[in-house]
Amino acid sequence: MTTPEAREEAVLEAVRKRREQVNDAIPEELPVQRPERLYEASRYLLDAGGKRLRPTVLLTTAESLVDVEPLSSDYRTFPSLDGGTIDIMNAAVSVEVIQSFTLIHDDIMDDDDLRRGVPAVHKEYDLEAAILAGDTLYSKAFEIMLETGADPDRMVEALGILATTCTKICEGQSLDVTFEERANVSPEEYLEMVEQKTAVLYAASACLPAVLLGSDDETIEALYGYGLDIGRAFQIQDDVLDLTVPSDKLGKQRGSDLVENKQTLITVHAREQGVVIDDLVDSDTVEAVTEAEIDAALAELEKAGSITYAKETAEDLVEQGKSRLEVLPDNEARQLLCELADYLIERGY
Amino acid sequence: MTTPEAREEAVLEAVRKRREQVNDAIPEELPVQRPERLYEASRYLLDAGGKRLRPTVLLTTAESLVDVEPLSSDYRTFPSLDGGTIDIMNAAVSVEVIQSFTLIHDDIMDDDDLRRGVPAVHKEYDLEAAILAGDTLYSKAFEIMLETGADPDRMVEALGILATTCTKICEGQSLDVTFEERANVSPEEYLEMVEQKTAVLYAASACLPAVLLGSDDETIEALYGYGLDIGRAFQIQDDVLDLTVPSDKLGKQRGSDLVENKQTLITVHAREQGVVIDDLVDSDTVEAVTEAEIDAALAELEKAGSITYAKETAEDLVEQGKSRLEVLPDNEARQLLCELADYLIERGY
Repeated sequence: MTTPEAREEAVLEAVRKRREQVNDAIPEELPVQRPERLYEASRYLLDAGGKRLRPTVLLTTAESLVDVEPLSSDYRTFPSLDGGTIDIMNAAVSVEVIQSFTLIHDDIMDDDDLRRGVPAVHKEYDLEAAILAGDTLYSKAFEIMLETGADPDRMVEALGILATTCTKICEGQSLDVTFEERANVSPEEYLEMVEQKTAVLYAASACLPAVLLGSDDETIEALYGYGLDIGRAFQIQDDVLDLTVPSDKLGKQRGSDLVENKQTLITVHAREQGVVIDDLVDSDTVEAVTEAEIDAALAELEKAGSITYAKETAEDLVEQGKSRLEVLPDNEARQLLCELADYLIERGY
Repeated sequence: MTTPEAREEAVLEAVRKRREQVNDAIPEELPVQRPERLYEASRYLLDAGGKRLRPTVLLTTAESLVDVEPLSSDYRTFPSLDGGTIDIMNAAVSVEVIQSFTLIHDDIMDDDDLRRGVPAVHKEYDLEAAILAGDTLYSKAFEIMLETGADPDRMVEALGILATTCTKICEGQSLDVTFEERANVSPEEYLEMVEQKTAVLYAASACLPAVLLGSDDETIEALYGYGLDIGRAFQIQDDVLDLTVPSDKLGKQRGSDLVENKQTLITVHAREQGVVIDDLVDSDTVEAVTEAEIDAALAELEKAGSITYAKETAEDLVEQGKSRLEVLPDNEARQLLCELADYLIERGY
């Protein structure tokens, strides 16, 4: 029986080893070329860090599918299920590039100043550069996916998943914006929004290797479901962490969601319990809010059972996600995907 | 011998007939669905009008390639060159959707208030909605292209062209922004920028039917070249029209490029002739500028030979573009593509 700490350590080590390879691949697939300022702005956020969780899900799923020992096969010449090789690293980079594009445009829309501890792209550069950097990453993600070397029919399916994923992310972001002006969002509506805004990219990350390597439809579908489940759990845990992790560790003001009036699973649950969300925090800006205010709000949300509700919902999703992995061969990589799911809701930041 | 007027009339009629079909197809491929505000914002500019020149190029090229009489075949079940049918209308809509996405984001970047005689999307809605509408159209263009029913290998090639086209448009827009701060842009640099920002989408429009219908590489390449040539000519003519067409007919203030310090082939040429471009117009805003100021600037540019230079450059490009069409069967649709090229530089608005 492994302890949560030992499990977290193992997951972090697995993520770190894949992250190093992904970090090497990003400049290869997205070199800074003319016009330099455009590509520098496009790379800025990618180079600023990030855990590379989605690429890790993608690469580990690939390893489980073809039943190889984790980290034993070159991701650039990865064996497919029916002979031949796939550059599965390109698929991993493509997904990370999509993630980066959405963050750059989201930061403009939310007028967030900081991301990954550095200025947001529209602050470091300007609005024009940030819009254009996001737009460039968008098409580059398709170009990078096109270089995986997959058969045309599998490639078409992969590109279709990439396109519908991007559409759903936009739909989710649009719902999120609408929710800020609505006082009666239900937990079900909130979870639907999170599915579209966040979870679909985890779903794409989990099922794309199955598509590219030649799995059957049942496997593709189960992996898509695993990604949707852990992606929703990831977002719920993010909402919990925003309230519970010290600001310096979080890289931004703790409780910023409450200050900025953003809906989370916690607030939509609390509202249903009769908590008046608007009264939880008086301050209107993250600069003005005090730790004492956040602590008082947190206490009220805990009293309403909303923190527990959010945590339990995330735990249920993770269990459901893990159960879907039974379509995979029973191997070390599958075990890692289970541990990764646990990590997403056990992580402290 | 047809007169320019008769030719223009014939071209406009051909464009109009295809535009009607494209206008019918847009709501079919891009219905307003949940979340409604997102899709309404995405459709806003598409519904506001537009000549649909790029779809017209695409559909007419398809007709010439398979040697059918113009408008005689259903674009939804269009015959490919080796049996089977292609929904070539979807390719036409996809290209128009890309065009619309770039206009929405460009208007934000240039902070332009008006487009096609109506408020720009970020004015009619807001910045958030406009960024998101553009992002939605971006992925929808890929989704719509994926529904042409082409063989996977042709589909992969078409999607690759769509992706690299989008990347080049971003690169061109980035160069355009850079040029606003540079006083020594050469005509060659300007034409390279125009090729990336504007002409590549005409090039894609001309070569995509060849890819989807199964033409050989030589034909695909020649049509790509035709599109690049007429696309550059189109932009140069736009630059000329910005100076010479009355504001009410233009749908925006005449001479706005000069006021906003935008480089055009006219100004980069004039600068090389010793004209001090910054002194041409004193007013800093389109609201403040007078017709007399624009007239005086125009007279100076004419004296420097810059208007003539721009017109001749556009004419040369059109002739070059037309000569590339010899790869096509000699038919009515090919003739129309030639007339369309002439129209692009003969049009008065």
